[in-house]
This record gives sequence, structure tokens and C-alpha cells, in this order.
Amino acid sequence: MKINGKDYRCLWFEDDAIKFIDQRKLPYRFEVFTAKTVDDCVFAIKEMVVRGAPAIGAAAVYGMVLGVNDVEETMWKLRGTRPTAYDLFYAIDYMVDKINSGEDPLESAHKYVEDLVQRCRRIGENGSRLIKEGMRILTHCNAGALATVDYGTALSVFRVAHEQGKKFFVYVDETRPRCQGFLTSWELYHEGIPHTVIVDNAAGFFMKNKEVDMVVTGADRITRSGDFANKIGTYEKAVLAKENDIPFYVAAPVSTFDNNIYSGDEIEIEERERTELAVFNGKTIMPSWMKVRNPAFDVTPARYVTGYITEKGVIKKKIE
Amino acid sequence: MKINGKDYRCLWFEDDAIKFIDQRKLPYRFEVFTAKTVDDCVFAIKEMVVRGAPAIGAAAVYGMVLGVNDVEETMWKLRGTRPTAYDLFYAIDYMVDKINSGEDPLESAHKYVEDLVQRCRRIGENGSRLIKEGMRILTHCNAGALATVDYGTALSVFRVAHEQGKKFFVYVDETRPRCQGFLTSWELYHEGIPHTVIVDNAAGFFMKNKEVDMVVTGADRITRSGDFANKIGTYEKAVLAKENDIPFYVAAPVSTFDNNIYSGDEIEIEERERTELAVFNGKTIMPSWMKVRNPAFDVTPARYVTGYITEKGVIKKKIE
Repeated sequence: MKINGKDYRCLWFEDDAIKFIDQRKLPYRFEVFTAKTVDDCVFAIKEMVVRGAPAIGAAAVYGMVLGVNDVEETMWKLRGTRPTAYDLFYAIDYMVDKINSGEDPLESAHKYVEDLVQRCRRIGENGSRLIKEGMRILTHCNAGALATVDYGTALSVFRVAHEQGKKFFVYVDETRPRCQGFLTSWELYHEGIPHTVIVDNAAGFFMKNKEVDMVVTGADRITRSGDFANKIGTYEKAVLAKENDIPFYVAAPVSTFDNNIYSGDEIEIEERERTELAVFNGKTIMPSWMKVRNPAFDVTPARYVTGYITEKGVIKKKIE
Repeated sequence: MKINGKDYRCLWFEDDAIKFIDQRKLPYRFEVFTAKTVDDCVFAIKEMVVRGAPAIGAAAVYGMVLGVNDVEETMWKLRGTRPTAYDLFYAIDYMVDKINSGEDPLESAHKYVEDLVQRCRRIGENGSRLIKEGMRILTHCNAGALATVDYGTALSVFRVAHEQGKKFFVYVDETRPRCQGFLTSWELYHEGIPHTVIVDNAAGFFMKNKEVDMVVTGADRITRSGDFANKIGTYEKAVLAKENDIPFYVAAPVSTFDNNIYSGDEIEIEERERTELAVFNGKTIMPSWMKVRNPAFDVTPARYVTGYITEKGVIKKKIE
């Protein structure tokens, strides 16, 4: 992705360390976070220096490189960071397999990441065919380069369509509590893609007023039946899209499909800390006596999904 | 309402001025705003020192008292403050009528406000019958004493049920952009009603997980067909309630029914300023280059409503 004209990825391996664009500081400040140890990498994933299922997978493969001297311990430390991100387990298993086969850990990790970037690019190429001139598209959370090393999933679709000269407009849900919509806006702004941020409450308003022609989101985990887990609020937007006859697409690499489970009911949903609602960009916005519940993800049943945009093509039917 | 054990209303007339609990400062600080002139009153309504359709109506009747020397000008100034709040027009028309009939303006205003408070109390009495032991109820925005002078509409239902010793739990949508859910939490906290604040994105999650048994919201304006305008996001929650077979009730005094219009499509929706999203409790949370759209209300079609809780009873069918 371009940031002020220079090419970046959201994370990369350099000088025996993982470098991350620190997403906790965005969209306010551009800073790089350096992880020299497995524990630094665990911190980066847990504290959301890096976020987005595919990017977490990429962080994990490099994390395995940092912890190659104790593969077993590193594996368990990394597995414990984010229970909802299926790519994380996929990435760790990949690395354990490569290391056990005697392949070079860093080269294997690089190969994983390059492959991810190319798959994201192809997601964009496949998905951009769905975008017609003048469309207004809603997206939720950040399924961009920041979430996938480069290109993104949902945002790759927009990037490629924009490269092809198509004119379209994006509504970006701010995506409380962490407002990852601000990250999406930051990416679209740097790409020059016309868009506007809206509160999550307004998505239904624009759908009902026929100002949204399509919804595209990412996914953290997709089951064999096509149910998928994604950022809290995705389920709401999917129900509203169906109610208003608006196509709803999920953009994700094939690695997001978890063939081990059939139903979305089997997906464990993490509830995160109160601070996510109570503190915004370091500023407390909620009185101390106020209680919250904070589920970080929800599960959207397959019946709300029009299709899955993957690097292998657009799957319009249920997976099974 | 009780605030630290003392009885308060959200606004009252004292020393030739309107006193308002300054809702811009809540739930952080308790401060009283004094409006000595019509322009002060217009400011209080526009800047949301006072908010909620019935409370705006009460502010307007006292505003008419302050501007009784130029009824025509006062009327137009007040009418221009908030286009969605039907109570506002109702209240102004009431005062113009009383003044034209030679009745005492202040006494007429007091009568309007007392009547409003009593109607809210009766809304609570009628609605509390719907609350069964152990229920989990979702509410959106603030339809409490702060929005209606005293008792509230949706919150009056909770207050009365709580007085009756019923045990129940309330999920409070934070209600971005202005987070009026924090005001609801503040009221429930002072009443001792168990509740938790959630992000608006999580309402669907809890509904789908069968952790919500009923939804109760207020309304700013209800048409003859039963369509109603309320805070942005209400439409989303109503669609989600229907999708999950959860009863959805609208609590509002009869004065909220606007018999002049049939369909919700006729309701003008105000779009408010960017600052509502960009600044939180005086703190900027959004970079200056970020664009927003900010519709303040939405319209929920009558087909999503199970019933209307009014001071005259619970109306379970469409109005017409």
C-alpha cells in the first residue's frame, strides 16, 4: 500500500525482528513497532498493534521464526493470542510442518507472506468484476492492507476496481468499539477512493434509503456450511442487507475456511476488555461506574451471504 | 428522578428562566444551564443541552413564556430548532392557542409539563405489565426522564416495573454518535436497575444468542400508519428484533402521534454536523481529513413494531 507515496506493508521481517505499522496509533500517527522476541510478537497480536485475521497469520509465521529454538512453547504462546482468528492456527501449523520437514524457517515464512499478498491481489481481481460503475458499497471494519499485509480482502476489491478506473463510492462503518473503520478510511484516503465514514447505526438508514448497492466485508473464519465469524456488527449489517435486497459478499482467502467445523455455532467468540469501549485513542470517554459487555466478533449464518470472493474465484453458493 | 437521593426534573421554570440539567455534561458532570431568553432556549435545544422529543416540547412551552412579547417571532425561532421532533410543533401550537385565548402563559406551560409528567408515569404503568420476571430487555438511545422531564417513556416502563419489585436486566445500546446510551446508563444506575452498556454493533449479537427477550425504545414522531422516527439505529434494531422473533415496543405519549402524515417516508430526516462523530466529550477522536455523513434519525416502518405503549394503554395493532 502507498503511504504518502511510499510503498509499505503492514508488517515485514527486518534485522532479526518483525516490524509492524503500529495500528493502535493510526489514523493519527504513523509509527513502527519492533518485535524482537516471541513475547513481543504475542503482545503485538494481543494488544492489536496488528489486527485482521490474515495479518495475524503473517505475524505468527514470523513469530515462529523468532521462537524457532523452542517450537512447542512458541506455538502455544501464539495460539493463545486470539481465539477467533482461524488464519492464526493455519499459519502456525504451516510453520510447524515446514520446521519439522527441515525447511528454512525464515524462507518458509517469507513464502507464506508472499503467497498471502498474491492471494489478496487475486481476491481483488476476482471481486472487482462485481463492481459496476457508480455503485455505492458499504464495508464494515478494516479488511484492508493493514489487515492482510498488503492489498486487503474487501479493500483489495476496491483497490483493483479503482486501478481499473471504475467510479464508485464507499460507506465505511466506523465499527465501534475500536473504530477500525478509521483505518479503512485512512487506506481509502491514501488510495484516493471516494468514501465517507458513518456510525454503525446509520448503515441500515442508507440501505433502506436505497443508497447502498452492495456490501463487502472480510471474514475471520468461515465454516464448511458458509457461516462466518467477523468483527462485531457484521451480522447486523448482513441481516439489514438481506432485508433490503442488497447483495452481501464476504472477501477472504481460502485459508480462512475452517473445514474442521460445520456450523458457526461452534465458533468461540472472545469477549474483550471494558477499556475498548471506555477509552478512545488514550482518552477516557466512559465514567468508571459504567458496566459493559464487549463481544469482539459475531457469527453470520450462510443464508445472509450472496457469495464468497476468494483468490480462486467468486463462490456464489454455499460451500457444501 | 432521583439524583444522589434528591428529586430532579430534567428542566424546570424558576426565577423567570428555564433551568436545564445540562445533558452535554452528563454522565461526567452534573451542571445546570440557565436560559433567560428565547435565544438561550433555542441554543439549549439546538446544542442538545436538552434532548428527547417530549423534553424539547417542554422546553418550547417555557420558551414561549420567555418570548410572550413577540409570539410570532418566538414561534418561528423555536420551530426551526429540530425538524424531526413532532412534540415541538405540538407544544408550540398548544401555547399559541392558550395565549390567543387569553390564558396565563406560565400557568399554561406548567399545566403542559405536569400533564406530560403524568402521561409518562402512566406509560410506565401500562408498559410494566409487559415485563416478566427475569426478562432481558434492550433499549436504544435515551427515552428516560432526561428526555421527557420526568419518568421517561421506555425508561418509565423500567422504573415502574422496578418499583413493583420485578427483576429484569437491561442492555443499553451506547447509541453513537452522541452516546445517549450513557445517559440511560446514568439514569438506570441512579435507580439501581441492573444493566450493561453495549456497542450498537453488539445488539444483533445478543438478540441472535437469545439473550434479549424484548426491545423497548422511545419515538420522536409516529405517523398515522404507525411508522415512526427515532434516533439513528432504531431501524436496525427493529429489523434485527423481527428477524429473531423478539417483540419490539415503542413507548411514547399520544402527543408523539402526528395525524397529519400517513407514511414515514414523509418525515424529514435531519443530518447533523460532523463534530458529533469527530469530537467526544470535548476530545477530538477523528483526523481532520476524514469525511462523514451523519443522519440523526431513521424511520422504522410499522411492520416491525409489536405495539405502542402510550398513556392510554398498549396499542398492539397498527394505528389505522
